[in-house]
Parts: sequence; C-alpha cells; structure tokens
Amino acid sequence: MPLLTRIRGPRDLDRLSLEELEQLAQEIRTFLVDAVSKTGGHLGPNLGVVELTIALHRVFESPKDKVLWDTGHQSYVHKLLTGRQDFSRLKMKGGLSGYPSQAESEHDVIENSHASTVLGWADGLAKANQLKQRDSHVVAVIGDGALTGGMAWEALNNIADANRPLVIVVNDNERSYAPTIGGLANHLATLRTTDGYERFLARTREVLEKTPVVGKPLYETLHGAKKGFKDFIAPQGMFEDLGLKYVGPIDGHDIEALESALARAKRFGGPVIVHCLTEKGRGYQPALQDEADRFHAVGKIHPDTGLPIASSGADWTSVFGEEMVRLGREREDVVAITAAMLQPVGLEKFAKAFPERVYDVGIAEQHGAVSAAGLAAGGVHPVFAVYATFLNRAFDQVLMDVALHKCGVTFVLDRAGITGTDGASHNGMWDMSILQVVPGLRLAAPRDADQVRAQLREAVEVEDAPTVVRFSKGAVGPAVPAVGRVGGMDVLREPGTDTPDVLLVSVGALAPMCLEVADLLDKQGISTTVVDPRWVKPVDEAMAPLAERHRVVVTVEDNSRVGGVGSAIAQALRDAGVDVPLRDFGIPPRFLDHASRAEVLAEIGLTAPDIARQVTGLVSKLTGGRFGRATEIESVEPARD
Amino acid sequence: MPLLTRIRGPRDLDRLSLEELEQLAQEIRTFLVDAVSKTGGHLGPNLGVVELTIALHRVFESPKDKVLWDTGHQSYVHKLLTGRQDFSRLKMKGGLSGYPSQAESEHDVIENSHASTVLGWADGLAKANQLKQRDSHVVAVIGDGALTGGMAWEALNNIADANRPLVIVVNDNERSYAPTIGGLANHLATLRTTDGYERFLARTREVLEKTPVVGKPLYETLHGAKKGFKDFIAPQGMFEDLGLKYVGPIDGHDIEALESALARAKRFGGPVIVHCLTEKGRGYQPALQDEADRFHAVGKIHPDTGLPIASSGADWTSVFGEEMVRLGREREDVVAITAAMLQPVGLEKFAKAFPERVYDVGIAEQHGAVSAAGLAAGGVHPVFAVYATFLNRAFDQVLMDVALHKCGVTFVLDRAGITGTDGASHNGMWDMSILQVVPGLRLAAPRDADQVRAQLREAVEVEDAPTVVRFSKGAVGPAVPAVGRVGGMDVLREPGTDTPDVLLVSVGALAPMCLEVADLLDKQGISTTVVDPRWVKPVDEAMAPLAERHRVVVTVEDNSRVGGVGSAIAQALRDAGVDVPLRDFGIPPRFLDHASRAEVLAEIGLTAPDIARQVTGLVSKLTGGRFGRATEIESVEPARD
Repeated sequence: MPLLTRIRGPRDLDRLSLEELEQLAQEIRTFLVDAVSKTGGHLGPNLGVVELTIALHRVFESPKDKVLWDTGHQSYVHKLLTGRQDFSRLKMKGGLSGYPSQAESEHDVIENSHASTVLGWADGLAKANQLKQRDSHVVAVIGDGALTGGMAWEALNNIADANRPLVIVVNDNERSYAPTIGGLANHLATLRTTDGYERFLARTREVLEKTPVVGKPLYETLHGAKKGFKDFIAPQGMFEDLGLKYVGPIDGHDIEALESALARAKRFGGPVIVHCLTEKGRGYQPALQDEADRFHAVGKIHPDTGLPIASSGADWTSVFGEEMVRLGREREDVVAITAAMLQPVGLEKFAKAFPERVYDVGIAEQHGAVSAAGLAAGGVHPVFAVYATFLNRAFDQVLMDVALHKCGVTFVLDRAGITGTDGASHNGMWDMSILQVVPGLRLAAPRDADQVRAQLREAVEVEDAPTVVRFSKGAVGPAVPAVGRVGGMDVLREPGTDTPDVLLVSVGALAPMCLEVADLLDKQGISTTVVDPRWVKPVDEAMAPLAERHRVVVTVEDNSRVGGVGSAIAQALRDAGVDVPLRDFGIPPRFLDHASRAEVLAEIGLTAPDIARQVTGLVSKLTGGRFGRATEIESVEPARD
Repeated sequence: MPLLTRIRGPRDLDRLSLEELEQLAQEIRTFLVDAVSKTGGHLGPNLGVVELTIALHRVFESPKDKVLWDTGHQSYVHKLLTGRQDFSRLKMKGGLSGYPSQAESEHDVIENSHASTVLGWADGLAKANQLKQRDSHVVAVIGDGALTGGMAWEALNNIADANRPLVIVVNDNERSYAPTIGGLANHLATLRTTDGYERFLARTREVLEKTPVVGKPLYETLHGAKKGFKDFIAPQGMFEDLGLKYVGPIDGHDIEALESALARAKRFGGPVIVHCLTEKGRGYQPALQDEADRFHAVGKIHPDTGLPIASSGADWTSVFGEEMVRLGREREDVVAITAAMLQPVGLEKFAKAFPERVYDVGIAEQHGAVSAAGLAAGGVHPVFAVYATFLNRAFDQVLMDVALHKCGVTFVLDRAGITGTDGASHNGMWDMSILQVVPGLRLAAPRDADQVRAQLREAVEVEDAPTVVRFSKGAVGPAVPAVGRVGGMDVLREPGTDTPDVLLVSVGALAPMCLEVADLLDKQGISTTVVDPRWVKPVDEAMAPLAERHRVVVTVEDNSRVGGVGSAIAQALRDAGVDVPLRDFGIPPRFLDHASRAEVLAEIGLTAPDIARQVTGLVSKLTGGRFGRATEIESVEPARD
C-alpha cells in the first residue's frame, strides 16, 4: 500500500495526480477486503464509496467543512483518509467503531447509525453557519435508500426553502439494504437513464470552463444553461420541483467527474443535489455476485471466496422466520411488513412462499406501523418485523395509530437487548421501557426457540391490541424447560423450601444466567424461585401473591433498568400493597461503547456472579447477616467474541 | 335549516340538485359559525371543507368506501352529513368528540389527531382491500400542511409504487396551522398558478365526456391526453415524477367540479392525487380577516364579530413566550424552533423580535429535533417549543441525535398533562415516562410562572445534554412559594414535627392540589412534608435521605403513572437501599375520553380528597390504625369547563 500508508489526513490527497488517486482507490479496496474479511463489518457499502470519499476530501476541507455520513457504516474509507488505518480491532472493544465517532476524530460528526438523519443535521449546521457568518461548507452523503425515510423528506422540504449553501450527495446504488423500493426509486431510475443529459452536461462544462464569465460563478451560468435546455434533454426532476438544484447523474467511480461536480456544487452557494451512481460491492466479485444484499454487512469471511468462516448455528431470527412460514400456511390473513430489511429480520422465506403477503415499506418505520394499523382495520393481521432499536422511530404510531384504534398488529423486535459490536445506537435497550406506557399493548420476551414459536402464535391471536415479541441477536441457546406454572408464568426453578428467600424474575434470553444466579445463591444457603413471566406486559396477576411469599424480589432484564420490566413489577407490587423489597437489574441508562455482547454484559454487571453477589448482600442485610459472605462468589472473565 | 335537518346520512345527498347542494353548503356554514361560537372548536378548517365534504359523500359510498380525514379536526361537516347534528356539547363530556370517533359512527375510521397519518392508513386499507378482493374505495383527505410531515412522504413513496385504487385529496389552503412552508409549498403554488392547465382540463373533460371510448375508462383516456399535452401547458409535478397520477388544481368550493374530478379519480383504478384549492375560514369574515391562523381553533366567540367572549388570564404559553423574548435579547445564540405552530406555542413575539432566529420546520417534529442537534453542534442553543404529545414523534431523534451527541437543545413541552377536551391523542401524558430512558436528559416541571421563567433559564444554560421544560395547558395559577430547600428541591410545606409521616412529592402544576392534600392529611393527624423536585430527572440526590425520614412516600404527577416520576423516584430509593413504602399517583395507562381537565382529573382520582383518602388508609394500615377514618374526607364535584 505505498500510497495509502502515506495518507495521514485529507490534505495529503491534494498532491496526488489523477493516476495516483486511482491507484489509491485500488489500494483502499484491497485493504477493505483484507481487513473486513478478518473482523467482519460493512464491506459492500464501503467498496461502493471509495472514489466518492476521495473526491469529497479533495474538494472539501474537513474538519472546517463538515462532511456528514448518513447511516455511518459507509465511513470506513473516510476513516482511512482521516488518519485511522488500524482496522485490526474494527467494532471490537478498544478498536475502531464501525461508525463515525467524535472520540476517534475531529473529522467525524454524526455517530448515530439510524438512517435518514443526515439532511436534518446538515440543515441545522447550515443554519448555524449562517447565524455565525462562518465561511464553511456542509456536505451530506445520503443513500437512495435513506431518502425513502420521512426525516429525509422533512429535511429536503426545509433545505429547499432556504438559500443556505448545502451540498447533498445522493449516493445512488439502487439499494438500501436490499434494492430500494417505491416511487422515489422509480424516479431516480428515470434520472439514471438519461444518458444524453449527462453527455450534454459534460460538453457544456468543457465549454464553460474555458469561458470566464464576469461577476458570475461558473456553476450559476452552467445552471442557467441547463435550465434553458432541460425540457429538451431530460425529465424535470422532483428535486427541482421542490426548489433544489440538481446535478447529475455522475459516475460515482470517476474521480475526475466527481471532483468537477462537487466543486461546482460547492461554488454554487445554495442547496444543491449531486446525484452519484455507485456500485455496492464495487471491485469485489463475491459481493457483486450476491444479489440479495451485496455483502452489506458480513462476518468473518475468506477474502478470496467471500464464504463465511464460521457457520453459525440456529439463531433467533431464523427460528422466527421459519415459524412465520408455518403460520402463513395456516392463516391466510397473516401478512408481513419489513422496513427495507427483509433478509436481516428473517422474512425471506415468508416472502418466497407468499410474495403477495409481504410489504417492504422502505426505510420507513413510521409507515410500517401506520400502514399496519390500516391493514388490521381492513381485517388482516400484520406482523411487522424490525430491529428493536428502530422501533423508536415508530413510537407515536404504535401508540396513537395501533393502540388507540385497538388494532391487532404484532411487532417482532429482533436484536433486542445488548447487541454489542455495532455500538450505542444499535443496542435494543429501549423497547421494554417506552412500550410500557402504551395502553393495551402486550409484550412477550421469549426465553428460547420454543417460546419464540409459541409466543408468536399467542401474539397473532390477539386482534384488539398491539402485541410485541422481542428477542436477542445471534445464536439461540438450548431450551429452558418450565418446571411449573403460576398464573400465566413459567416457573423455571422451585426453591426447595416452603419459606423461600428470593423470587428471581428472569426476562427472555437471560433465563440460563438467572438459573446460574439461583445456583450461586443456593450455595450461600439462599433459597430461590426462578420465574419467567413470558408476557412481561401486563404484569401477571399472580406476580404479587407470589412475591409476597418471598423475602425479596429480584428482576433481571436485557433492557434499560429505567422504566423497564423491573419498574413495572415494582409498581404492580406497590399497587397490590405488597411492600417486599425489590431490586431490579438491567442496563444502566447510558450509551454503551462497542464491544462484544459478553464484554458489555460484564462491564455493566449483568453476569451471574455479579448479581448473586449483590443479592446475597441484600438478603444478608435484611436478615441481619444470616448468609454467607458475598465476596466468596467468583467472577468469570467474559469470552471476547 | 330546511335542507340540513333532512340529511340523516350521506345517501340523502343523492337526490339533491346542484342548487340545493349549494344551499346546503350555505346552511352548513351558518350552522358551524353558530354552533362553534357557542362551544369553541376548529372553526376555520371546517368552513374550508364544506363543498369538498359534500362532494366526497356524493361520489363515495361511506361506510363501504372509507373516507379518511387527516388530523380529524376537519371532520365537523362529515359529522353533520353522517347523522350527527347535535353540536351543543362539542368536545364536552358526553358530547360529540372534536375528532372522528369510531364509537360515534360507522363512518369514522381514524381518531388520532396527530397529523400526516392518513396516507399510511389509506395504504394499509387499500392493501387489505386488495388481499380480500373487496370492491371498495379508499379516499384520504390531507392538508397541504400535513404533506410536510415525513410520514406523508413515506406513504406517498409506497402508494406510488403499487397500483392499488386509492384517491388522495390534497386539501390545499396554503396553510397548516399557519401558512405552509418549505419547498413543497412552493411547488404547490406553482401548480396552483397554472390556470391554463385547469382551463385545458375542463375543456378536455367536456369533450371526452361526450366521447365514449370503447373498452377504456374515460379517465384513463383523459389522462393519456393530458400526458401528451402536458409539456406545453403545465409544469410536470413531483407527484407524477413519483408515479402518482395528478388531477388539478380544482376549485374546492365548486361542488360540480369537485364531483367530476372525484368521480374520475374513483374510476381510475390506481393511486391518484386530486389537488383541491380551498379557503380556510371560507364565508366567515372574521376568520378571513385573521391572517395569523384563520380561526384555526377558537374558544367561545361572538358569532358576528368573532371576538372572544371570555378574556383568558395569563397562561403558561405566554409566560414562556415572554421570557423567550427576554432571553433572546440577552443571548444572541438562543434560537427557536416550531413545527408549524408558531403562535400556539407562544413564539410569535420572539419571531417578531428576532425573525432570523426562528425556524418553522413544518409539521415535522423529527426534523425539528434533528436540525436542533445540528444547530447545537454548530454552536447555537435551540429551544424547540412543541405540544407534549407531539414530541412522541421525535423520540428517536431526542435519544439518538440530541442525547447521544450531547447536544445542548432545550425542548419546551406545552399542553403537558391532561388537556381534556381534545381527547385521547392530545393529552400530554407520555413525555415524563418515555424521556426517563434518555441518558443525560434533564427534565423540569415548573409549578408556576416564576418557575417557568427560572427553569427555562436553567435549561438553556446546559450545553452538553438535552433539557426539557414541560408545563400545562391554559391559565397559570398563583405563585407557590418555597418555604425551604433540600438539595436542589423546593420544600413547599414543612411537616411541623421531627418525625413526619408522609413525604409528598409534588410535580409541576399540581402543587396547589398537593398542598391541599397535606392540609387534609393534617386534619387526620398525619404530618406531611411537601416537596417540589423542580428537576424531576435526574432524581435529586437529596431525595433518598429525605424519604428515609418519613413513613411513606407519595408522588403525584400529571403524567402516566407508568414509568413516570413516581417510578423513577421509587427506583432511586431502591438503588439507595431505602425501602420506605411508596405510592405513586398519576394518570392511569389508558386512553381518556374528551371532557374538561377538571372532569378528567376527577374521573381518574387525581383530586386532593381522593389522594388524601388513599394516603390516610395507607398510613393507617402501616401504623395499625392510629389515624382517622379516611372516609371522613369529602369529595368535591369538579367544575365543568
């Protein structure tokens, strides 16, 4: 990598010739395939933006100018060009984040990896530049997929109305995760096919660049020319209808063309869209041959073949996906919804079996939820499968459209709880708190594959309220059998005495860990009942009487401690006048750095020894020191994954 | 009202002549001014849709066809035509809802009054119609203002992509609450001004309606013709670029033109936009003369002059609005954001004083929040004033954009708590629960005008985290002075003993009521400390030690009981190992029917006698019956307002 290793910052790009830049692009591709195949990561998107990122950093002066990335997983090349070339621990504890990170670099702004936010940030930064009379530029890179999100529309509408300098680069690879859908995608396709238009622009540019125009920026002149001729050579675009200047389409792998377009856009002085066509997975055959998602995000792979190194066992997602196919066969009225993530949420098989009963709404969680309300009102039962953290986008619709109207809609939340390596914005740690307030909503946290199947079926039986089934990311553990039943709750472990000490309430996938806590407590002479409520909202009516038979209640959940299942149970006990002391374990209310799930759980004290130690201390205090010293419980070092 | 009183349902419109329909429209306008001036309500919007609603019910067959209203406050005429003509108790307990209501009529579908949802509902219902092979139509009425909301875009993108029958009526009055802003508004204006286009359409229609075309629906033929000529007579519209057929603009007060356009759209068999131009406040001079909001929503008024009958005293909103002006003078870096509600949230004076420092983002709470993050990152301090219930739309942005990036943004939540007469979707009862999970966020609930001013100032001093100041709707009560201070909390009442019984935690505007509770408890011999935490998140560090000195802690908040301030305090006490019994009073987790605020509070037991009675019972139980009988506390009948 003779060129790449010499790039310490964006300005090192200035002295390179076009030939050298093209060599640099080649080196970066080789680096990316090599590095990401060892660690896993977002390979396809980054292979698509190599030339674009180089051109951006040649034309704009980061960090004085702000180069903003939507859904920051396309920022690897940006990292390489801004002094971050050690990818050996990408997404691992202490290594580079998989997204931009202000802590890593002054060149990074947006850390949040929820889509469609970049135009809003750009609008805000451009307003601030205007107020502070700063001479600096804002350039926002957004994918065509992310443009389907409502936030993007809200921002475009605002940006178009003002005359602040702001460059929007549409990175159009015809895909979000999978191919982009909807009317906008069709419109972009129309723009893409106007070859004559681009040839015309190229010719005009050549002429104009040789023609100095007194007192007028070159671009403006060009734009004037373009306007005049437009009706003859290209369809008028919706962006121009909104009031945004449009330049394009540009070949997103032609550094010279990109630089020229970006430079013109930079000089323009108002809001302008630069429409760049890129190829996801560019230059890497295994990615290009993968029609499903072009290696959007991969685990560890063989760099030559692109084949995964470790074959993963059954995971939560596929357990759900397979049960959906069975359900679909049995019930014609069950339909599925995804927000541009058919495969990641496990709906691929359902879509193959029932293509007319699956709706990909684009990166549009709000629409996913509200159209689900409409579907339910029309007599079918929608199952909207979505990552837990992305449901935040549709909170108002779950509440006001689905719940208020008593619609039978099932939300299946994948990647709930700590997900780890994708960092703060991918942890699904909010759902069991914010959904508590939704009247009528029922929420299930299945503990194993059998429960996923059973509770999904229970959920789609509910026709007058929203239901939620939430589960973790990754491999599903072995079955955890019930040894009894109290009300609607599964007893996972009997205390072995009539006067038990601890009622341990285990939520979802943490069941094996909770059983381990009980074993540890047992060794301290503390008798423990372990119960899995299955449906954590509403709190089971049998909970208060059961709690009353214990000295202390302990709840353990893979969700924010604040307002979560523990809080709800505590309130239910208060309401029932049961004042047994309760301690609630969960995720502390802070944003968590990227690391493996096991590392994060250890860091926040969600391990069997940590919990057992604290519970022992509590029981000891309550009983005047009758029980063994808590410090005897040894910690286990988490496996790094 | 010779015609109106004979309309029992939509089909009664069928037999009326055009002349009679126009007379009916006149009668309806007279009825609306007369009725709404007595009760208050959304006058302007309904005066604008009289002819449109008549035409819709002539052309479509509700309830077989679904006629859907966005932001249902424009449904009064619809109510009049579907058997609901007793407006004497509009928005009052037991009277008609101010919005559509499934309980009122089979002609109503969407009850939620948050904007921009209708297209998503329509998409869902159209999908269900297709799956169930139902021969019924879906027609969605949406204002130009509501089209600025991201949900509308997400829906348009989905609707355009499919070929399901769906009629979108854009009710374009150039306003949301106030004049509509943004690129879309400019585009609609372009469409509006193409007079030649409409004249052309009218002529073509006449010709075509006399020309039967074998095997082709008339509209399709027309559309073909329109396409061909379009480049000469009108700008291509962004709707057509998206793939939506466009008809318009139509004079929204010309019943014949409306019927003709709607009938064609109905026959078309695919998604089509009918662009109708209407005049908000049509036919009522006082409304037309009101440039600010065209009598969007009024209180009781004199029907002739439009002047308000009761002059309201100082309200929470204007206290905030005036302090903002002072703040703006002192700090150049303070800017304001509103989501299409400049005047209702009290920012009008600020906008007059500092026009370049206020941003109306349209009905776009997501953009309000994310652009605020951008503004903060650019070095200014945005104050986003919004109704509490509408902040739900921006939950993900508050969390992932503002809080994750440690941006100093202040959210001012107006209409927090029970608002009453606007019904379930306007009560601001969610914010203090869902915001609890947001790391770093600080939340203030000022109890009186002085505290609004003081806490707003404290809020804008915070530069590394979101701050929230939430207050009620309507008149602000008298000042409630502090008699002491514990940590950062105001003591409102000392217990008068060293061994007090009850710690009463009063949140926000409920302070006077809490003092009343304390007086009632006093009469029972129960000594009570009343404390106002001021900042309810995070829980003050002095809370646990203070609680420990009492027998029982009681929290009272104007917010959902679930996961609210009471829950947060309970958790803080648990974490501190303080197991003093706690009881939390607040709004029960259900959707509340419309009624006055006082009536709702009485219904849910948030009154001084109710709370005092329950607390007395609890203290009695805990102390073995040492205190007076709770039943001695008399209830008060709430004033109807």
